[in-house]
Amino acid sequence: MTNEHLLVATALAAWKLNIERTEKLFFDLPAEKLQAEIAPGKNRLIYLWGHLTAVHDRMITALSLGERVRPKFDAVFISAPDKTSDLPSADEIKKAWSEVNARLLKGFETLTPADWLRKHSAVSDEDFAKEPLRNRYAILLSRTSHLAYHLGQAVLALK
Amino acid sequence: MTNEHLLVATALAAWKLNIERTEKLFFDLPAEKLQAEIAPGKNRLIYLWGHLTAVHDRMITALSLGERVRPKFDAVFISAPDKTSDLPSADEIKKAWSEVNARLLKGFETLTPADWLRKHSAVSDEDFAKEPLRNRYAILLSRTSHLAYHLGQAVLALK
Repeated sequence: MTNEHLLVATALAAWKLNIERTEKLFFDLPAEKLQAEIAPGKNRLIYLWGHLTAVHDRMITALSLGERVRPKFDAVFISAPDKTSDLPSADEIKKAWSEVNARLLKGFETLTPADWLRKHSAVSDEDFAKEPLRNRYAILLSRTSHLAYHLGQAVLALK
Repeated sequence: MTNEHLLVATALAAWKLNIERTEKLFFDLPAEKLQAEIAPGKNRLIYLWGHLTAVHDRMITALSLGERVRPKFDAVFISAPDKTSDLPSADEIKKAWSEVNARLLKGFETLTPADWLRKHSAVSDEDFAKEPLRNRYAILLSRTSHLAYHLGQAVLALK
């Protein structure tokens, strides 16, 4: 592998590790436990799981990897805070989470290092010419941090 | 910049963004607020800040960037859980945090992409030959996630 391939492979390993940790935490959690808040008055686990699913679903578009899986999740899990909407069931979230992340992984495999360095869909050609770090790779890294951020919160509801 | 330089620069930007968010959160927080728990019975903010400082201090060694700044922090902030030791003052932690992260940033600037792909200090030559992703770049990415993980917890004490 060339250096650029190794750098991408290292970042993909970090992504996958955080996905595995998330699945270890949420999969098979009893339904009532998903209603637990991460701290008094804060988000419930089920909301965080749906939020992560929606944010990852949006990555499919941001990275130009095809059609989104559950665009309707945005209204409930991104635009609205927890406890203001009826949420999909745990089974629906789990199904969406799995489909979204499988689509992402499959898409990631098609990208060369040069592809990762292309602009993501939310930045204009003009802005990208000035700020070349607003690339697809930055989306991968920032969403890995975003996942870790909420994982740190989610574990608080379990211990 | 070559692709490998751009990939490294993108990861360094992600690191710096998380460092800035952490400093925005902890710097100038009143001393009594640093005693707040992230959730009832969980870690206090001051412990998390010291923990992050100690983990980053260990990166200096892991990445072979020179001498550590505060090896004594390990006993209080890594080996021991919160509320079992007398902690350094907020001023001492802030000073250590700033020195540690300045030393890291200075060190990061000296590393070429090929350097980032060398093994980190905690992996043997033998193991690294089999697992080339256990490189210094993986340390940078995993510590960025670690920082985001605890940042997600820390914000819970503030709102």
